[in-house]
Amino acid sequence: MESPLEPSMKRTEIHTLGEFGLIDRLMEPFKAVHPSTRQGPGDDAAVMDYGGEMTLVSTDMLIEGIHFDLAYHPLKHLGYKAAVVNLSDIYAMNARPGQLLVNIGLSNRFSVEAVEEIYTGIRAACRRYGVDLAGGDTSSSPRGLFLSLTAVGHAASEKIVYRGGAALGDFLCVTGDLGAAYLGLQLLEREKRLFLENPSLQPDLGESTYLIERQLKPEARADIIELFAQQDILPTAMMDISDGLASEIFHLCRQSGLGAFVEEVGIPMRPETAFQAVGFGLDPVTCALSGGEDYELLFTLNPRDVDKIKYLPDIYIIGEMVPAADGIHLHTKGGHRHALTAQGWTHFSQ
Amino acid sequence: MESPLEPSMKRTEIHTLGEFGLIDRLMEPFKAVHPSTRQGPGDDAAVMDYGGEMTLVSTDMLIEGIHFDLAYHPLKHLGYKAAVVNLSDIYAMNARPGQLLVNIGLSNRFSVEAVEEIYTGIRAACRRYGVDLAGGDTSSSPRGLFLSLTAVGHAASEKIVYRGGAALGDFLCVTGDLGAAYLGLQLLEREKRLFLENPSLQPDLGESTYLIERQLKPEARADIIELFAQQDILPTAMMDISDGLASEIFHLCRQSGLGAFVEEVGIPMRPETAFQAVGFGLDPVTCALSGGEDYELLFTLNPRDVDKIKYLPDIYIIGEMVPAADGIHLHTKGGHRHALTAQGWTHFSQ
Repeated sequence: MESPLEPSMKRTEIHTLGEFGLIDRLMEPFKAVHPSTRQGPGDDAAVMDYGGEMTLVSTDMLIEGIHFDLAYHPLKHLGYKAAVVNLSDIYAMNARPGQLLVNIGLSNRFSVEAVEEIYTGIRAACRRYGVDLAGGDTSSSPRGLFLSLTAVGHAASEKIVYRGGAALGDFLCVTGDLGAAYLGLQLLEREKRLFLENPSLQPDLGESTYLIERQLKPEARADIIELFAQQDILPTAMMDISDGLASEIFHLCRQSGLGAFVEEVGIPMRPETAFQAVGFGLDPVTCALSGGEDYELLFTLNPRDVDKIKYLPDIYIIGEMVPAADGIHLHTKGGHRHALTAQGWTHFSQ
Repeated sequence: MESPLEPSMKRTEIHTLGEFGLIDRLMEPFKAVHPSTRQGPGDDAAVMDYGGEMTLVSTDMLIEGIHFDLAYHPLKHLGYKAAVVNLSDIYAMNARPGQLLVNIGLSNRFSVEAVEEIYTGIRAACRRYGVDLAGGDTSSSPRGLFLSLTAVGHAASEKIVYRGGAALGDFLCVTGDLGAAYLGLQLLEREKRLFLENPSLQPDLGESTYLIERQLKPEARADIIELFAQQDILPTAMMDISDGLASEIFHLCRQSGLGAFVEEVGIPMRPETAFQAVGFGLDPVTCALSGGEDYELLFTLNPRDVDKIKYLPDIYIIGEMVPAADGIHLHTKGGHRHALTAQGWTHFSQ
């Protein structure tokens, strides 16, 4: 029997394409044929028209050793985070989630009580966001823990906001504050290293509760979607910030066929985030641009709606949509203009 | 930092509960609150009411080393099977699938070409069943390959068939033939052992094409759902046969609050399946009852509808629903009556 991995086959390493290059290549040969499919791959969620409100479905994985480390991620928080990460994708379409399905693969190092901890976290998220656990699959895994969740939501067709809807001159906005989850992760990684070197050391997470919580127990911006509905605000494009602001701006620009500029001074960041970044010898803005896992919303707004958001809490205008030919740039405090890259603009590659 | 696995915690091993015991225990504290949830955990798919036709969502995993072995499972067939297994759950609700979302975790031993093979199989299934690939997530995995797929479907509310709808006196029916996928797996496992002992040996799968194909490239019974629609047949309860006939009969009985008897002589099996079972020293009926992975449909029918199915191809009456107090029994060819267990009734435990 020849191995199905077929060593004789041409071999291209996945890292040469990157995650998004791989997805583009895999999706390219697929053509949508089902009349109900309104949005296929390439947005925060798929959108289906089954006759009433639109159905939205999004699915995401958390894999041990890739997305989390059980040395510092409590199982209850992990369940909570897995749920929130998926719900965030539904909110990012300006829709409301109703159900969650949970697939979980477990090696035999996990006891029933450990699994119950995960589900306690999932249940807390279900309560907090008013969604139901509606199904899923449980299986053993030869090694490690992984979670694959599916969120189902709904919205009136005309209220759904896609990534590709931004227009020239639209304002670019974000919610909340950025970079904290990334610095929380750096702190946890540092404590883990110190603990491994000297197991009698007590963790010194001091004043960093906020940063740690943003990493271990993020929230989805359901409140912003409610605010949009109350204030009759309809963004022109939207997505959630899971991979970092810079990378998400690239997605939004590409799908809208536009460029953008971002004012460094407009990027919202908490003082403790900036302070901790400096403590690690990192540039705070780079952490906000490339850190990821903030689960805030990035959206664009028609300028005529700007008065509606001006006095709303937790929403910040950070830039503007420009022609694609003008590219994607960051205007720094010092008056400089840098081409932004999906990896942030400088420090991570130094 | 204390480990989140909390060794001080009471430890119950998962195998002491079994998969279904674990699921029951994990799901018990969840209460449905969202007004759109029509069916939560416990059926082949979740059912949501968003105003038009019902939306159905089902999700399932295939994990390397648990559900498949790449020593004999070609990647293309694996992609096809992963899709079919999920679509089968939608058909099992008497609904039609429209979309598929694919999460895939890959270690670095997989090349881009290998991943494309998997997606070629998924695409073949999408074409065959007329569904769209509508999204998903791609991630690296520290070890091994796993697939977590989500199928989305639709049906008019009154056409959906649940597991719990069987009534006393209903006929118990199955489609197709049973046991072949299990014997296909035994053949592949045997060839793998022989190959590992002597890599120069050529596989001798001889006359067993059908059995091998049932294991490596199963099909979902879309045709039966179409037949039901054409002939105006509405089963009272239905599910697909993924874990084995006996286990599925237990689910259907439990959820319908009934017992059942099964006529051994009624269980459909191909001659090559029975022949191969005997070749392995296995009881053919036990293979059909407990083999699993057939992806046929198990359903119950009101006796007044029996004339509608009498002359339909590939549908077999195998028994009848009886009061719960009468239990679940197999009537053998020899006139004996055995209490059926979810594991089959005898030989596997010998």
